[in-house]
Amino acid sequence: MSTTIQMSEELGPRSGWGKAIECPMASMFEILGTKTSYLIMREAFYGATRFEEFVERTGISEPVAAARLRELTAEGLLEKVPYREPGQRTRSAYELTEKGSDLLPVLVAMMRWGDRWLFTNGARVELTHADCGAQVHTELRCDAGHPVPTDELELGLNPRRLRAAR
Amino acid sequence: MSTTIQMSEELGPRSGWGKAIECPMASMFEILGTKTSYLIMREAFYGATRFEEFVERTGISEPVAAARLRELTAEGLLEKVPYREPGQRTRSAYELTEKGSDLLPVLVAMMRWGDRWLFTNGARVELTHADCGAQVHTELRCDAGHPVPTDELELGLNPRRLRAAR
Repeated sequence: MSTTIQMSEELGPRSGWGKAIECPMASMFEILGTKTSYLIMREAFYGATRFEEFVERTGISEPVAAARLRELTAEGLLEKVPYREPGQRTRSAYELTEKGSDLLPVLVAMMRWGDRWLFTNGARVELTHADCGAQVHTELRCDAGHPVPTDELELGLNPRRLRAAR
Repeated sequence: MSTTIQMSEELGPRSGWGKAIECPMASMFEILGTKTSYLIMREAFYGATRFEEFVERTGISEPVAAARLRELTAEGLLEKVPYREPGQRTRSAYELTEKGSDLLPVLVAMMRWGDRWLFTNGARVELTHADCGAQVHTELRCDAGHPVPTDELELGLNPRRLRAAR
């Protein structure tokens, strides 16, 4: 049973080219490549916004949490929003940006894989569809709305790039 | 605009519990947590099976590639299959297992995010639906088949675990 991705006519066969450059997956991993970054992002999706919340809910040490929040803010996944409690100085809360929010499918796909493969009876928690109670997973679909089984997946050159290079 | 995940009645509010334990996403990251592991898995999906192919197509050094292939095989994401070319000794090829193949949504979600957010005109390559040519993304759906917008996502206790604990 083959589960590999086919190459488009321009690209194939894979043996015809060497190291993949500008891989969007590798580039994504350069932005978010440590477990502590994923824990911070998870807690942002679970509603944490304040420094102490991130520290307490991830179990990361304060200096590491501060470094991660700084990086994630610099990369534009979180943004700082000032808040002030009565009688206290102004502090920063961290909120998900559109760029950060768009990572949700990555985290959900990871959760579902971990749930399925790493725990005999599933993990302690799971994501469900609030309306019907069924568990949530990620599904491959094309932008035209068709479900895409693995044997219909094709890697090709990006036509927007080809046009931009002209 | 809120993009956070709501907590189920048993779990909520998030402030009511501390550090998340047995997080399936964190557990997944413990199995696959280095960039080189993701590059090896990417090339497995692109059809690489032989040691030299993984080295050449990822640009990873031979010792690191050997270590990653060993780990990924030990974790059951790849399996060794013997092959022999005429006049040569028997060697091992590496093929995706079901557990490994099931990582595809994670990698596709990462690729799509990288493509969207890290390159002005998109990355050099993209995944498309071979049948219609449209780009491929991952979509959140529940096991009952409904599309799940973020505001209908709920984190709850896994009922299979609760039953197993009785």
